[in-house]
Amino acid sequence: MGIETSPYGLRVRTPRRYEEAVAATRAALREVGFGVLTEIDVRRVMKDKLGLDFRPYVILGACHPEFSHRALEAELEIGLLLPCNVIVYAEGAGSVVAAMDPVATLGAVVGNPALEEVGREVRKRLEVVLDSMGGP
Amino acid sequence: MGIETSPYGLRVRTPRRYEEAVAATRAALREVGFGVLTEIDVRRVMKDKLGLDFRPYVILGACHPEFSHRALEAELEIGLLLPCNVIVYAEGAGSVVAAMDPVATLGAVVGNPALEEVGREVRKRLEVVLDSMGGP
Repeated sequence: MGIETSPYGLRVRTPRRYEEAVAATRAALREVGFGVLTEIDVRRVMKDKLGLDFRPYVILGACHPEFSHRALEAELEIGLLLPCNVIVYAEGAGSVVAAMDPVATLGAVVGNPALEEVGREVRKRLEVVLDSMGGP
Repeated sequence: MGIETSPYGLRVRTPRRYEEAVAATRAALREVGFGVLTEIDVRRVMKDKLGLDFRPYVILGACHPEFSHRALEAELEIGLLLPCNVIVYAEGAGSVVAAMDPVATLGAVVGNPALEEVGREVRKRLEVVLDSMGGP
């Protein structure tokens, strides 16, 4: 199962159950230098704030300190698009893991060549994360 | 001092000092229905992870539960672009407050009319927040 792309993200499907997929994603991010700075349990927010049932779904805010610093030096307000979101949600018996495509968001939205370079470096690492999740 | 725009954000300058601007931004977000779900102290991250000095700078992850739900119903993976980031950073003797432009990011990046509508509604509210910050 390879990486699929969308206009703003990269995605893999995995047979792993949701909780296991979240743990594996965190570990894989750590291995390529990303810390998880924020975490939003979407299902819990929907339940607590709106009383609605939603599928298991988490938004992890992943930050690679060196690349974040380079991005901020290249464009001070790029914090509006940081950290790099990685989502995990339940799908059928397995899960989907997806990452914001930093080339699309940092490069295309902003049009700054230095940012595009950072975006490419970050995407390489996110692809490693997703590749590691695509297997069984 | 009015709202300035960038390709991906909206911005106001305020004479308020950083700490005061952060508190006022939080209060203004609350008034238009946004909760702050995440907070990244960029200066602290740069100091702790890289040993670098950076200006006072915070990334607030603002979430309006109803609009988030509408966005997720319109496009499940829009969590890659949520929550809506609002940044505050020190600039000279005052501060800058900026918000991700949800019309640019949700609409333009994704090309989904239902999302564009949500983006417009969210932007209206963020403009209220920024207008309230632009004064003395």
